[in-house]
Amino acid sequence: MSRASLNTATVKHATLAEACEAAANAGFGAVGPWRDVVQAVGAPQAARIIADAGLRASSLCRGGFLTAADDAGIRAALDDNKQAIEEAATIGTSELVFVVGGLVGSTPGGAPTSGVDRDLVATRGRVADRIADLVPFAAEHGVRIVLEPLHPIFAADRAVISTLAQALDLAAPFAASEVGVVVDTYHVWWDPALQRSIARAGREDRIASYQVCDWALPLAAEPLNSRGHVGDGYIDFATITGWVRDAGYVGDIETEIFNEQIWAEPTSKTAETVLSRYDQHVAPHL
Amino acid sequence: MSRASLNTATVKHATLAEACEAAANAGFGAVGPWRDVVQAVGAPQAARIIADAGLRASSLCRGGFLTAADDAGIRAALDDNKQAIEEAATIGTSELVFVVGGLVGSTPGGAPTSGVDRDLVATRGRVADRIADLVPFAAEHGVRIVLEPLHPIFAADRAVISTLAQALDLAAPFAASEVGVVVDTYHVWWDPALQRSIARAGREDRIASYQVCDWALPLAAEPLNSRGHVGDGYIDFATITGWVRDAGYVGDIETEIFNEQIWAEPTSKTAETVLSRYDQHVAPHL
Repeated sequence: MSRASLNTATVKHATLAEACEAAANAGFGAVGPWRDVVQAVGAPQAARIIADAGLRASSLCRGGFLTAADDAGIRAALDDNKQAIEEAATIGTSELVFVVGGLVGSTPGGAPTSGVDRDLVATRGRVADRIADLVPFAAEHGVRIVLEPLHPIFAADRAVISTLAQALDLAAPFAASEVGVVVDTYHVWWDPALQRSIARAGREDRIASYQVCDWALPLAAEPLNSRGHVGDGYIDFATITGWVRDAGYVGDIETEIFNEQIWAEPTSKTAETVLSRYDQHVAPHL
Repeated sequence: MSRASLNTATVKHATLAEACEAAANAGFGAVGPWRDVVQAVGAPQAARIIADAGLRASSLCRGGFLTAADDAGIRAALDDNKQAIEEAATIGTSELVFVVGGLVGSTPGGAPTSGVDRDLVATRGRVADRIADLVPFAAEHGVRIVLEPLHPIFAADRAVISTLAQALDLAAPFAASEVGVVVDTYHVWWDPALQRSIARAGREDRIASYQVCDWALPLAAEPLNSRGHVGDGYIDFATITGWVRDAGYVGDIETEIFNEQIWAEPTSKTAETVLSRYDQHVAPHL
C-alpha cells in the first residue's frame, strides 16, 4: 500500500468524496483531510467515505490558533480544539495537525492593527500553556497534538512556531504519544539545523507526518498560496527525504499544496500529477 | 555623538553627498554606504565626503556572492570581494557586510532554471571555503568580513545564510577581528533562538552591526522591498534592542530599508523620519 497521502487542501474545491475517489484512482494509500471537508458531511460519514475508498486518514488538519491572551479567546480556542480532537478520533487518525496562530492583533497578510501585541516571546509562552491545557483531553481520545512549524514568512500573522527545533522544545514536556511534530518541506527546507532537528525528532519518536510541496518563486500575491508541485521549485527532496528516512519515519507522506492555479485544475488530474511527482522525487529516497 | 547611522539603501536615489548632507542635518552620527554610491565618486572621494559631513562610515555594504561552483565564478567572486575590501579600508570602515548569495542557477524572485543546483548543504560549504580564501586579504587591510543572515524567504535565491547561529558557526574558525556578524531585525526577528544567538555573538565579540527596519505586511510584489519604517510593522524593537544592549554592543545602529514608497520621498524627509523612529523605538532601549 502506497505511503502517499493526498491532503485535501491540494484539491481545495473537491468534496471529501471527490478527493477520496481521485486519490484512490490515482493509487494513493491515504488522504489527509482538512476539517472543512470533514465538517461538510459530519465526522462519522467522513470516516465511512475514507474507508469505503480503501484509504487511511493520515492526519486531520488542523487544530491550533492558541495565541489568544484574553479569557474569552482562550476558552474559544480550547473548545474548538476539543471538537477537532473528537473529529480526528472519529475519522480514525491519531494525528491532529496544529497551526498555532500569529501575534494577537495581527491581520493575515496585512498591516498590524493599532493594538497588536508584538511580544513574540510571551505569545510563544501562551502556546506552550494551551498545549498543556489540551494534552489530557487529546490523550483520552487517542489523539496526538502535532505541532507544525511554519516558514518564518508567516511568523507575524499565522504561526509563531518557526522551526522544527522550537516545535520539539514545545513537545519535550510531553510523551511522544501525546505531542508530535510535522516535517513539512515547504516550511523547513531552508533551516541550517534541519538535518540535526529531523534526527532529533526521530530519536524522540515525534515525527507524526512528513508533508511535501515545493518552494516556488515568484511568490504569489497571497504568499500563503505560493507552493508548487514537488519538482517545480528549489527544494532538495532527495536530501531531506533521506534525512526523514534515516530518522526512522515509516508513516504516510502527505502532499499539501496551496496554489490557485493548481486548485483550478480537475481533481483527478491534480491527484495524478501529485502522485507522479511523489514517485519521481520522493519515493526513491525513502 | 548619535549612534544612529543612515544606510544609503534607505535613500536609494540620493548620491553619497546628498545622503551625507541629509544624515548630518537630521542628526545622525554615521552613514552606512553601499558600494554603488562609493564607486560613483571613487572610494577616496567618498571618504572625504563622509568626513567633511562630520560623519563616520559605520560599514560598507556589500561584499559576498560566494556560492559559485565553477572556477571562473569563484575567481570573479574573489576578485570582486578584494576590491570591496580595499574600498572599505579606503572609506575608513572596518566592517564589510557580506550577503553570500543563493543557490547556483537560482533567479532572484523567479523560478529555477533547468540547471539549478538544489544542494543547499554543499552550497553552504562553498561559502565557508570562500570566507577562508578571503580572510587573510581582509585582515591585511584591517577589514572584517561581516556575515549577514538573510530572512529564510530569501534562502533559495539571495542568501544561503539564514540564521544568526549559522553565521556564528561560519565565523567560528576565525578571530573575532576577522569575521563578524550583522544583527538585522528584518532578517532575524522571528528566530526562536534569537536571544541566545545574540548573547553568543556578544560573548564572541562578533557583533559588527545592528541594523533596524520593520517586518511590514502585506509583502510587496518584490518581497525584497517590503521593509517598513521602524514602528510600522510587527517587530518588537524594545526586546531585541535590549538583547543587543545586553550582549555588550556599543557600535552604530544602521537603519536600512528597501521600500519603493520610501525611496520616492525626499531624502531629507526620509532621514528625519528614520531618526525620529530610531529615537522613539530604539534609542530608549540601548
